[in-house]
Amino acid sequence: MSNTFGKNIQVQIFGESHGPAIGCAIDGLPAGFRVDLKALQCFLDLRAPGHSPLATQRKEADRPEFLAGIREDGTLTGATLCAIIRNHDQHSTDYEKIQDCPRPGHADYTAFLRYHGNNDIRGGGMFSGRLTAPLCIAGGISLQLLENKGVIINSSISEIAGVPNPDDEATATAILKARDDGDSVGGVVECTAAGFPAGLGNPRFDGLKNRLAQVIFGIPAVVGLEFGDGFGAARHRGSENNDVYEIATDGTVRTKTNHCGGILGGISTGMPIVLRVAFKPTPSIALEQKTISLSRHENTTLKITGRHDPCIVPRALPVVTSAVALVLLDFLSEKQSIANC
Amino acid sequence: MSNTFGKNIQVQIFGESHGPAIGCAIDGLPAGFRVDLKALQCFLDLRAPGHSPLATQRKEADRPEFLAGIREDGTLTGATLCAIIRNHDQHSTDYEKIQDCPRPGHADYTAFLRYHGNNDIRGGGMFSGRLTAPLCIAGGISLQLLENKGVIINSSISEIAGVPNPDDEATATAILKARDDGDSVGGVVECTAAGFPAGLGNPRFDGLKNRLAQVIFGIPAVVGLEFGDGFGAARHRGSENNDVYEIATDGTVRTKTNHCGGILGGISTGMPIVLRVAFKPTPSIALEQKTISLSRHENTTLKITGRHDPCIVPRALPVVTSAVALVLLDFLSEKQSIANC
Amino acid sequence: MSNTFGKNIQVQIFGESHGPAIGCAIDGLPAGFRVDLKALQCFLDLRAPGHSPLATQRKEADRPEFLAGIREDGTLTGATLCAIIRNHDQHSTDYEKIQDCPRPGHADYTAFLRYHGNNDIRGGGMFSGRLTAPLCIAGGISLQLLENKGVIINSSISEIAGVPNPDDEATATAILKARDDGDSVGGVVECTAAGFPAGLGNPRFDGLKNRLAQVIFGIPAVVGLEFGDGFGAARHRGSENNDVYEIATDGTVRTKTNHCGGILGGISTGMPIVLRVAFKPTPSIALEQKTISLSRHENTTLKITGRHDPCIVPRALPVVTSAVALVLLDFLSEKQSIANC
Amino acid sequence: MSNTFGKNIQVQIFGESHGPAIGCAIDGLPAGFRVDLKALQCFLDLRAPGHSPLATQRKEADRPEFLAGIREDGTLTGATLCAIIRNHDQHSTDYEKIQDCPRPGHADYTAFLRYHGNNDIRGGGMFSGRLTAPLCIAGGISLQLLENKGVIINSSISEIAGVPNPDDEATATAILKARDDGDSVGGVVECTAAGFPAGLGNPRFDGLKNRLAQVIFGIPAVVGLEFGDGFGAARHRGSENNDVYEIATDGTVRTKTNHCGGILGGISTGMPIVLRVAFKPTPSIALEQKTISLSRHENTTLKITGRHDPCIVPRALPVVTSAVALVLLDFLSEKQSIANC
Repeated sequence: MSNTFGKNIQVQIFGESHGPAIGCAIDGLPAGFRVDLKALQCFLDLRAPGHSPLATQRKEADRPEFLAGIREDGTLTGATLCAIIRNHDQHSTDYEKIQDCPRPGHADYTAFLRYHGNNDIRGGGMFSGRLTAPLCIAGGISLQLLENKGVIINSSISEIAGVPNPDDEATATAILKARDDGDSVGGVVECTAAGFPAGLGNPRFDGLKNRLAQVIFGIPAVVGLEFGDGFGAARHRGSENNDVYEIATDGTVRTKTNHCGGILGGISTGMPIVLRVAFKPTPSIALEQKTISLSRHENTTLKITGRHDPCIVPRALPVVTSAVALVLLDFLSEKQSIANC
Repeated sequence: MSNTFGKNIQVQIFGESHGPAIGCAIDGLPAGFRVDLKALQCFLDLRAPGHSPLATQRKEADRPEFLAGIREDGTLTGATLCAIIRNHDQHSTDYEKIQDCPRPGHADYTAFLRYHGNNDIRGGGMFSGRLTAPLCIAGGISLQLLENKGVIINSSISEIAGVPNPDDEATATAILKARDDGDSVGGVVECTAAGFPAGLGNPRFDGLKNRLAQVIFGIPAVVGLEFGDGFGAARHRGSENNDVYEIATDGTVRTKTNHCGGILGGISTGMPIVLRVAFKPTPSIALEQKTISLSRHENTTLKITGRHDPCIVPRALPVVTSAVALVLLDFLSEKQSIANC
Repeated sequence: MSNTFGKNIQVQIFGESHGPAIGCAIDGLPAGFRVDLKALQCFLDLRAPGHSPLATQRKEADRPEFLAGIREDGTLTGATLCAIIRNHDQHSTDYEKIQDCPRPGHADYTAFLRYHGNNDIRGGGMFSGRLTAPLCIAGGISLQLLENKGVIINSSISEIAGVPNPDDEATATAILKARDDGDSVGGVVECTAAGFPAGLGNPRFDGLKNRLAQVIFGIPAVVGLEFGDGFGAARHRGSENNDVYEIATDGTVRTKTNHCGGILGGISTGMPIVLRVAFKPTPSIALEQKTISLSRHENTTLKITGRHDPCIVPRALPVVTSAVALVLLDFLSEKQSIANC
Repeated sequence: MSNTFGKNIQVQIFGESHGPAIGCAIDGLPAGFRVDLKALQCFLDLRAPGHSPLATQRKEADRPEFLAGIREDGTLTGATLCAIIRNHDQHSTDYEKIQDCPRPGHADYTAFLRYHGNNDIRGGGMFSGRLTAPLCIAGGISLQLLENKGVIINSSISEIAGVPNPDDEATATAILKARDDGDSVGGVVECTAAGFPAGLGNPRFDGLKNRLAQVIFGIPAVVGLEFGDGFGAARHRGSENNDVYEIATDGTVRTKTNHCGGILGGISTGMPIVLRVAFKPTPSIALEQKTISLSRHENTTLKITGRHDPCIVPRALPVVTSAVALVLLDFLSEKQSIANC
C-alpha cells in the first residue's frame, strides 16, 4: 500500500494539503497502554507551522481528533487507532497558476503524469510536507511506548547550508539569509536511538536499514541516508572502520567504537543506532524560475508566492524521530516471536 | 518475508555460503519472454569470484541450475522461476575459530544473538556476500527485459578509498596497496538508469526511492545511499538545486539539469535515475584485531585467515545494477494498471 | 495489516461501533474517474439500519464524509480516498452488563483475551457489523468502476432459516417468526459476477478464490464459503462436475455448464463467477442465555436488551457484493501488467 | 507473491510437475529447533503417490533434499529453509494432445489464457497437485513445532462420494467403483486442531478464518470451506447455534458446545478449531469428454490417458493438515508480540 508501512506496527497516512483533513491509521499498538496526550501534543508542536519566524507563516494548530482506537483518557483499545487533523488555514488561491506551470523541484510535474492531471495541486496535495503531521502523531505515540522500554531517540541538525554542527544562532543566520535572498537552504539531520536491544532485525531485505530507509525516504525532500559513518566509511580502511568487540566494565559485550551505527547484517549490535538524513533545500523559493506551461506546451517563467519555509530542516527533526521510532517499535514487537516461537 | 522484495516482480533469495546451495525464486516474470542464457552467464561472471587478482581466490563457476519457470531454450513459462547455484569450493575449516570469536565488522555477533548461536557461521552463512549471486540471476534476467523496453542501466565506480572517479589503474592500485597492508578499502558505486519512462512511482512510502532503498540496503556492506546530488544537495540553495523545466528541441518536456536524480515525489521525471551507494571497506582483513571469546566471555584477539576481497566494490557493480533493474522492472509492470484500470 | 486487504486496490477499514466515527481508506483507485455520489448513497442505503421493520431499529444515515482523494463532484484525485461516517444514535448504556458477561456467539470473550479487557465493548466495538458500512463505501465505488468495464455483480438470498430460494415474503415470514420467538435465524447469500474477463487470477495462494475468501471471511458472521457447486460438487462424479468446453455460436470459447463457478486453478474462465456465503444466525437474541461473569469467575445468565437484527442476511447482500467487487477490481487492475510487462 | 503466504512463518512453493524439481522456502522458523527428519518423511509418505491401489501409479519417493536452513541432524539454523524434491517418474508424452485440447475441469484453458500458451502443460505444470508435496514439507515441520507446544492437528474424511463418515472400506469401495466406471469422486475433509490457545487471531481481514482460507483455497480441487457448523449453522436458530460459556470443572472458561469451530471474531476461543474442506471429484477421468481444439478453434473430444487418482481425498488429508499447521504456527509466533510489546 503506497501510503502504508510496517509489519507489526502498521501505519497508514492519508490526506491532501488543502482537502478537508489529513490523518493516520495505526494498527498493532498494544491495548491498554495509556498515551500521555499532553506530551503528544507538545511533540506535535515541534513540527507544527507558525511557531517560529524561520518557518512558514501558515498557522495550523495540528490538534489531532481521534476517531477510533483510543479512549478519552488516552488508553489504547487495541482497535486500529485513527486520528485526523482538519485543514483550516488554506490559501488555495495561491496555487492557481501552478496548475499549469509545474514548480521546479516539486512533484507537480511527476504527479501530473502519474495522475493524468487529476491530482489536487493545492499545497502540493498528497505530496505536501503537511502530511508529515499525521506521521508525527503515530511517531509521537511510538516514542512514548519506546521510552517505556528504555529506548530514547534524539534528532539534531548536523548541517545547515553546508555549516556543520550549527548551533541555534548559526542555523537561524543561515536560514534568514536565504530567506532575505528569496532563496532556500537544505541540511542534514542526525538521529540517534539509544537503548535499543541487541539482536533485533533481519538479514537482507527486511533488516533495520531496509525498513528505516523505506520510511525515511517517505519524508518529503529526503535525498540521502547513511548509517554510522556512511559515505565517510567508504573512505576508511577496514582496520579503521571495523568496530572491535570488548567486554565492558559492567560485563556486557560492546563495541569500542560505533562506526557501523549500531547495525551489522541488518541486526542491532546494542550500541546506539545512528543515521544521517540529507534534506534538499526547499524547492519553493521566491525567485523567479524557468518552467513550462503544460497547456500551451511552451517555456515560461514562474514566481511562487505564498508562505513557505526557507529551510524545512528544523521542522524535520520530529519527523525523522517519528520515522525511526515507528520502525524501531515495529522491530521491538517482533522480538518475542523471534525468541520464543 | 525477510528474504523477499517486490510487488509485481517478486524476488526471494535463499541459501548459506557453505551450505549445499544458494538460489532465488522469482514471481511475476512475463510468460513467453526468452532469456538469453549466454548473456545472463556473462553478466553473472562479472560478479563471480576468482576472475581477478583483486578479488577473493575462492573459485565458483556461479552457473545457475534452473529448477522451474524456464524452458531449456530460455523461454519463461510464467511459473515461479527458481534457480540454484551449488556451493563447491568451500574451505569450511577456515571458520572454526570465529564460531567463538566474532569478527569485527561482520554480522557474526548480531547473528549469534538473533539466532541464539544456531546460525551457520561458515563463510558468513546467510549473511555472506555470496548471496548476491542469486540476486544477480534475478537482476540479469530483469536487465534483459528492461533493455527490451529501452531502459539501460549502468553502474560504475565513482570512488575507491577516497579517490574520486578512479580509472581501472587507480582502482587496482588502491586495492592492491590495501591488500599488501593486510587491510581493505571501501568505495562508492554510481548507478544510472536511462530510458525509464516518466510518471512511474508512488508518493510517500512506496515510491521509487523507497523500493530502491529497500533492495540496495539489502546488499551486504552498503552503508549509505543518495539520489541525484544527495548529500551534496543539502549544501546547495534551492535556486541551484531546482531542476527547471523546458521544452526540449524534440518537443518533449525535460529538466535542464538533473540534480534530483530523475525522481520527484517518488515518481520518475523521465530523466536518468541516478543514485550512489556507499560500501564500507571489507571487514575481513589480515591484520590482527581485538575481539571477544563468547564462550569464555573475555577479551581476545583474532587473525582472520582464508580468502577475502580487499575491496568488494568492483564485484558490487553488477549487484547494484541488479538491485536497480529488479525495482525498475517492478514499477514498469505497474505502469499499465496505473494508466488503464 | 489486520484491517487491510488488496494488492492494487487496497482497502483499510477502521472504527468502533460506538466511537466517534468509522471509516475506510482506499488506495489505488484510478485518478480521473468520477464517482456517482447519489448512486453510491443509494447503494449504502441498502445496508443502512433502520430502513426496514426486519432490521435493527438503530437509525444511522450512513452518509460518508469524504476527507481526501475525491473532489466535491466525485472525481477521484489519485490520493488515498478516505471517508468516514460519524456514529450518532448510540445507546451505550445497553452494553454495561456485557462488559463482564460475554455474549454467547459474539467476539466479546475472545476480544477480552486478545486485548486484555481494553477493547471497546460497546456495540461490539471493532467487531461490530457496523464496520461493514465503510466496506460498502469502498465496494460501492468499485461497483461503479466495474460496471464501467462491463462487470455486473449481483447478490441474492439463496436460503433463509433453511428455506431455499425464498421470495421477499418467505424471507420476511421466517425473520419475523424468529423475532417473535426472541430468537434469530441465518441464511446463505449467493453472489454472481458476470462479465469478468477470462484469464485473470493466479495459481495457488493468490488466486481469485484465495483473495475472495480473505475478504468474505472478514464479514462478521460468515461461517462458510463455496464456489460454484461447492460442497455439492463433492458429491458429484467427475463426469458430472467437469465443465466441458465448446465453441459458442458467437465464436467464443465457453463452458457448457458452470459447476466450477467461473474459476479454474485460481483463474477466471470467462463464465460468471458464482459463490455462496453462509451466515450464522445473529448471536444477539432476546432469550435468556447462560454465560459467565469474568470478574466473579462463575456461571450466570444474560438477557441481551437493545436493538438487534433477528437476521442479518438481507442487509448482508450489499456487503457481499462489496467484498466481491473490491477483489475483482483488484484483479482487473492487474490485468495489464500480466499481459504487457 | 502468488506462491507465498504467511506473516511470521512464511512459505513459498515453487515448481512444475514435470520440470526438474519442485520445492519450498520457509522463513521465520525458530533457530535451534531440531526437526525429526524420519517423522517428517513418514508424514510425507502419507501424501506420496504410488503407495496405494487407490491412488495414481506415478511413483515418486518424495524425499526432500535440503539446500539451506537446516543442518544434517535436523537443527534449524534460522536461515530460510529451502527444500526441493526432484521429479523423476515423468511420462511427459502423455500430455501431448492436451496442449491443444484443454481438459475439462483442469486449469489448462485458464492457464493458456493467463500465460499466453507458454506455461508448461505437462502434468498440469505449476497447477499440479504434485505441488502439495513441498507444502507438506513445510507443514510437516510445522506440525512438529506445534506438537511441541501442545497443539495436535488431525484430518479425517467426513464424506466420500456423498457417503458421510465413511470407514476405510466404504471409502475404498466408493473410489474403486468410480475407477471401474472410468470416473472419479470427490469428498469432504474435516480437520480439527486441539490445544490451540485462546485469544490468538485478529478481527476482520487478518483473522484465523481469513488466513486459513487463503491457504486452504490454495490446495488444488478445493471448492468449499466451512468453520464449525458452517452451512449447517445457517439453518439453525441463534439459540441453538450460540455456544454458551461455562466455568469448567477444572476452573477454566469454556463453551459448552463448539458450533463456531473454535473461532469468534477471527480469534480463537480455546476450543478445538474445526473446519471442513470440500474437494471436487478429480477432473482427470478415463471417459471421453467434449472439449475444443485451441489451434483449430473447433469442438472435439478428448480421452485422457495416463495415471490419475480417481479420488484425491485420501491423499489430501496431510495436505489439509499442513495448511492448518502452517497458519496456526504463524499465529502462535504472533502471540508474544500481541501480549508484550
